Amino acid sequence: MKQSQLFTKTQKFAPQDEVSKNAQLLIRAGFVHKEMAGAYEFLPLGWRVMNKIMNVIREEMNAIGSQELFMTSLQRKEVWEASGRWDDEVLDVWFKTCLKNGAEIGLATTHEEPLTALMKDYISSYKDLPFSAYQFQTKFRNEVRAKSGIMRGREFIMKDAYSFCASQEEHDVFYEKAKQAYINIFRRLGIGDQTFMTFASGGSFSKYSHEFQTICDAGEDIIYVSEEKNIAINKEVYTDEVLADLGVTKESLMEKKAAEVGNIFSLGTKFSDALDLTYDANDGTKQKVIMGSYGIGPARVMGVVTELLSDDKGLVWPDVIAPFTVHLLSLEQNEATQKIHDQLTDSGIDVLFDDREVRAGEKFADAELIGCPYRVVVSKKSLEKGGVEMQRRTEVQNEIISVETLIDTLLKG
Amino acid sequence: MKQSQLFTKTQKFAPQDEVSKNAQLLIRAGFVHKEMAGAYEFLPLGWRVMNKIMNVIREEMNAIGSQELFMTSLQRKEVWEASGRWDDEVLDVWFKTCLKNGAEIGLATTHEEPLTALMKDYISSYKDLPFSAYQFQTKFRNEVRAKSGIMRGREFIMKDAYSFCASQEEHDVFYEKAKQAYINIFRRLGIGDQTFMTFASGGSFSKYSHEFQTICDAGEDIIYVSEEKNIAINKEVYTDEVLADLGVTKESLMEKKAAEVGNIFSLGTKFSDALDLTYDANDGTKQKVIMGSYGIGPARVMGVVTELLSDDKGLVWPDVIAPFTVHLLSLEQNEATQKIHDQLTDSGIDVLFDDREVRAGEKFADAELIGCPYRVVVSKKSLEKGGVEMQRRTEVQNEIISVETLIDTLLKG
Repeated sequence: MKQSQLFTKTQKFAPQDEVSKNAQLLIRAGFVHKEMAGAYEFLPLGWRVMNKIMNVIREEMNAIGSQELFMTSLQRKEVWEASGRWDDEVLDVWFKTCLKNGAEIGLATTHEEPLTALMKDYISSYKDLPFSAYQFQTKFRNEVRAKSGIMRGREFIMKDAYSFCASQEEHDVFYEKAKQAYINIFRRLGIGDQTFMTFASGGSFSKYSHEFQTICDAGEDIIYVSEEKNIAINKEVYTDEVLADLGVTKESLMEKKAAEVGNIFSLGTKFSDALDLTYDANDGTKQKVIMGSYGIGPARVMGVVTELLSDDKGLVWPDVIAPFTVHLLSLEQNEATQKIHDQLTDSGIDVLFDDREVRAGEKFADAELIGCPYRVVVSKKSLEKGGVEMQRRTEVQNEIISVETLIDTLLKG
Repeated sequence: MKQSQLFTKTQKFAPQDEVSKNAQLLIRAGFVHKEMAGAYEFLPLGWRVMNKIMNVIREEMNAIGSQELFMTSLQRKEVWEASGRWDDEVLDVWFKTCLKNGAEIGLATTHEEPLTALMKDYISSYKDLPFSAYQFQTKFRNEVRAKSGIMRGREFIMKDAYSFCASQEEHDVFYEKAKQAYINIFRRLGIGDQTFMTFASGGSFSKYSHEFQTICDAGEDIIYVSEEKNIAINKEVYTDEVLADLGVTKESLMEKKAAEVGNIFSLGTKFSDALDLTYDANDGTKQKVIMGSYGIGPARVMGVVTELLSDDKGLVWPDVIAPFTVHLLSLEQNEATQKIHDQLTDSGIDVLFDDREVRAGEKFADAELIGCPYRVVVSKKSLEKGGVEMQRRTEVQNEIISVETLIDTLLKG
């Protein structure tokens, strides 16, 4: 795409009321816009990143056989009363409103209750189980404070998956698959090294739940990392008993600030009890369905990547989620650059083509702020030397290479 | 995908409170689920259709250079007060709620106001114009009654686009492009022949706006169609003056029931006046930005397609938006059918593979209800004759053909 046609512009300063580093940088680079605290618009560059993050998650969820659907934001009071979570004292982040006839409804904070109710229409026999379903759907949470930029929203897209099994054994098999899918997801998203599976409190139906926590100063959580065992422990279960259970000692653990990028949770029959979701077992008895839930916040991942990888010049995107792979800068060589642009896009490479009539310095500064993995400059000098000047966003040296070599390099990743 | 793993099942009956034909059929076939009147979940088959519809729209919007973004559902009172539309007397479909600090906020019914306000950060000069932006985003409208199934929701995804221009001439150029894009979209979605561009009331800044109305008994509108001129007139502007203006006579027009599937609207400076969206013109003066808005409801399109094309046996999907191109039925030949499934998917063809252990009659009935364009049956008999039995959903005759011929036929479309 031509940068002269992109409606966003980079900005020298972020809004004064924006305190988080991730939102400051993303606003300055034109990726997001702040509508109100905890509610951000995703502008064209930012929406491209979000879609790439969501596609990685989608591929891994499909790979474990999960089925994508799309639920409603408007929620009936009845299904939430059934589980005891309609009460604002129990769930304190509700946004509620009313239909014209006066009936109270809520905006989905999560979807366990309505999906459990929905499944009563589709689950009747053990033969219908196991399976899982997921969605990318907006959640609304009425947070008192929302100061972490796009890392904690009053409104945010969540990938939430739910599993439905006939037995604890079936559940455990899917739970392990989901764990592995999450490990793959965070590795592919470029934060695998900094992301630990943590042990967290488990609720009534399991000893532990698991979170995926990325070590990050902007995170709101404290975790205790065992590098040796490649696991970590959440603060709320950091007790002598748990340490012994996991076979780690206090001395071997490092305290770190971290951001929760995902969680997986065994729900047991909590919701199938509340909403009477049963199946006919092989032996003719009626049994409650065993459930699990599995969440990832794509915008939080985008925020964490921003917090972790950006430098003093701007954003730094991993190749797989960059808005464009190549930022192609024309230094008064728009005609030659257009041809190179076409060669790259014909090879299936995403290109942001800076064809604007502005100073070279402004183009360089914008390329650093926007943070595409490869900056490719086309100038009189580079053309005379037979090619283009390529520089990785994460490196300081650049080199003149032919367009063919550039394409080879990019296709190899 | 294997049908044995699809969590939805077809149902003999729709819920008793569901009065619309589209929702009755879509619920029975497992495409949607009713959460409450006017709010439906899209289940795996239905979500595939929605995504295919949205992708056609996305391709045509990208082709006219529009830029995709994603705005918020939560809306600040101030921007809507600026345009005078916060008042429930003016806009009577608001859902409103409150932040924890008591501040009133609304759920987006549409996005003119917040997008106009947002653009103040990005538009300063005539050089920034023209451009357009669009999104697929949930709208919330507190309708008193919602009895048209997925054709009129209290919550529904809308593709809404907005254009920003420096002059009426620039606006007119984009408006004509949008018209053509809409014509392409409805043709590609399989309802081009039944869809007419209608003249509708224009508001303060233009004589007419234009709607795209599909002739359909379940529609809520009345239009007057001129087949000769390939246009139509909405009831609210069906006057002698307008007829004369458009050069048509009452006698040449046919009154039809129709459903509005899209609309395009010249907004003039209505919103840039209200929210003070200006640009510096070439001559140094400050001018107001000229805007337009362009909507399509993908779920309404899905509903209209259901109403128009389905028959007494079930749904009938046009190839381009079918959940799967092929419904592959194994009659006790799962092993051979699996191989054929793999050949088809390796060729890039979407296949729903009915591998269930149920009666042949149930498979046939489900294939008709679900409505994929090609039903392909693999039986002992078909294999002996050297292939598979193929039947188009819209035809009664079937034929035995080789798998190679099947693939050729499907790839040619």
